[in-house]
Amino acid sequence: MKNLSVIGIGSTIFGKHKNVSIIELAKQAASEAILDSGIDKKRIGALYVGNFVSGPLTGQEVLGGVLANSLGLGSIPATKVEGACASGGIAFRHACLSVAAGLTDFALAIGVEKMTHENTSVVTEALNSAFDRDTDGEAGHTFPGLYGLAWRLHEKHYGTNRTQVSAVVRKNKRAGLKNPLAQMGKMLSEDDIINSRVISDPLRLYDCCPVTDGASAVIVSSAKNAKYSKTPISILSTVQTSGNPHVPKSEGPMSFQATQMACNQAIQIAGITRQDVSLIELHDCFSIAEIIDLEDLGFIGVGHAASWAEEGRTDINGDLPTNPSGGLISKGHPVGATGIGQIFELCKQLRGTHPNQVRDAKVGLAHNLGGCGVTCSVSILANPNA
Amino acid sequence: MKNLSVIGIGSTIFGKHKNVSIIELAKQAASEAILDSGIDKKRIGALYVGNFVSGPLTGQEVLGGVLANSLGLGSIPATKVEGACASGGIAFRHACLSVAAGLTDFALAIGVEKMTHENTSVVTEALNSAFDRDTDGEAGHTFPGLYGLAWRLHEKHYGTNRTQVSAVVRKNKRAGLKNPLAQMGKMLSEDDIINSRVISDPLRLYDCCPVTDGASAVIVSSAKNAKYSKTPISILSTVQTSGNPHVPKSEGPMSFQATQMACNQAIQIAGITRQDVSLIELHDCFSIAEIIDLEDLGFIGVGHAASWAEEGRTDINGDLPTNPSGGLISKGHPVGATGIGQIFELCKQLRGTHPNQVRDAKVGLAHNLGGCGVTCSVSILANPNA
Repeated sequence: MKNLSVIGIGSTIFGKHKNVSIIELAKQAASEAILDSGIDKKRIGALYVGNFVSGPLTGQEVLGGVLANSLGLGSIPATKVEGACASGGIAFRHACLSVAAGLTDFALAIGVEKMTHENTSVVTEALNSAFDRDTDGEAGHTFPGLYGLAWRLHEKHYGTNRTQVSAVVRKNKRAGLKNPLAQMGKMLSEDDIINSRVISDPLRLYDCCPVTDGASAVIVSSAKNAKYSKTPISILSTVQTSGNPHVPKSEGPMSFQATQMACNQAIQIAGITRQDVSLIELHDCFSIAEIIDLEDLGFIGVGHAASWAEEGRTDINGDLPTNPSGGLISKGHPVGATGIGQIFELCKQLRGTHPNQVRDAKVGLAHNLGGCGVTCSVSILANPNA
Repeated sequence: MKNLSVIGIGSTIFGKHKNVSIIELAKQAASEAILDSGIDKKRIGALYVGNFVSGPLTGQEVLGGVLANSLGLGSIPATKVEGACASGGIAFRHACLSVAAGLTDFALAIGVEKMTHENTSVVTEALNSAFDRDTDGEAGHTFPGLYGLAWRLHEKHYGTNRTQVSAVVRKNKRAGLKNPLAQMGKMLSEDDIINSRVISDPLRLYDCCPVTDGASAVIVSSAKNAKYSKTPISILSTVQTSGNPHVPKSEGPMSFQATQMACNQAIQIAGITRQDVSLIELHDCFSIAEIIDLEDLGFIGVGHAASWAEEGRTDINGDLPTNPSGGLISKGHPVGATGIGQIFELCKQLRGTHPNQVRDAKVGLAHNLGGCGVTCSVSILANPNA
């Protein structure tokens, strides 16, 4: 899958959308992406919708067909794809696949989730469907529990401490303040974080991404058709992997092989080195996840990402700007939308129009992780003129 | 998507599988398909899982990643695709797409659903997520209600009567008797049908597909790699369409445009005429649906399919053998599995090894319909030596 471009992007605000249906949310993002692309929507030949838990939380499935009709896209193939929290990244990859295979000149990928209307226990139960229910699910795992455990193990092995992890939280919450799409930007002291309530020790409230509604959408074209856009962004690679869904018995969830493999493949296909990457949008569903992910992605040596955070090296003006959008912790995590939201954020950066603009942003990497590392998507985008 | 083959097939019995998880069900079918194909599973480079309501009914999502791991397929991209009752057909098309796009030499498509452990009202509520919930769902539609209405309208416009519709039920239930995978084969008189309880007038119990557990799986390869199989079946075309999800205001649900468009495209891509088709497996979720589908597929003139049924012309030895598997009514409808189950059935027919063998079966057509015609899949397969 080479010679593809993103030629249109759209997104709702990530946050609470009261009295708006999941279909309406998705339509808003998609309509904005179509408008932004400058193409006639009748030229779109495939629709992929990334979504995780619309069935249990909204009673609305078959999002592909309903949205194709609702958006006036005609009889095109329209498919919901699901890979837990990586559903959005998977939808993006399939839109790319449709164009790369020559099935259509233009494909639309939408990510969407509607969650805030339900209480937290219902949402948690729905999200738990990302575990292998025959084993880990049966054992009573939850995702806050899992990442609390991950932090404890990271602490034990590498000395990762509260101040270092707080640096991730403070950076991402600060970035969210300037991102108009973000659910909860905030200036936080370490005391604010420590004094917030315990979710799953050592994780406090501010260490966790919120429950969020939102939708994002992008239009993919062949590079040949990128001319329809004034600001096309090149897709250098998009990779999807599977991993072991079980909480590892030995070292625990301190690393996820699905991330490692996806990133290695994506870098190789893109024909670049990690030094070429200007910024990263990654899957910080919990603060500690950003540290784990940066090590799994291979940008920072194992056991060193926590000190990078503390030293400000992952800040917007640091060595490796990470989550200048605010990430999942601050921008929010409307699960199925997150992976497409990351592509949206990278495109804004690579167009040079992001509210938290990274200087000389030439190449961006998006990392979207599902379940306990059971599925992963990594995509690399670039400014074609840089 | 040309020059593809099905080189391996597997299926569980469709029926009640007590104390077996959805993952175990899917593994059984997939393992059988891998064995049947004769290839090393390590050569499979993509997995698609067709499933509709595993989230609300089993609490297990991310079936792609969990099954890739559980089957020992390594880090390959593995995706659940959902398009209501057409999820299986959509999974098959995406396995084909992966191979056609050159991403892998072999792709595995699994369809699976686990439903019988829940009571009917829970299942009905889950299936209702195939409506557009903002409109028709809100109006209180159910699928038995919809197809009851369809029959009444068909009766009004074309005089379709109980005896004709009963002929469909009797044919399919009879076929199920000989199919060892079928949930409920039976010899039925018209009185048996009339005396069964009303579900949604005029639909009686025997007019409706049952609630079913089951899984089916197939392995797709390029025609070049079909040599690994002793019995490869050629894929002439596989098409996916979207349609209007709303109950039409004027003529009612007597026809579904998604079916019409999918079949026209599939016939054209296959480069055949309808006269070349030896048999059809179609989406008879209700008895009246078989009549509607045959007319939508364009094999019988509008208003004439009911008399074809009465005259035995759609029997196994008739002019147009339809649902020799027993169809959804008799074989059962484990929703996400149905579309792959149809491909399984066609392959058995085209290999010449079906318990209800159609004479000189050369070309078979599968039709899988989702929601109120919101999404449709049609695939055409052929015996390469015939």
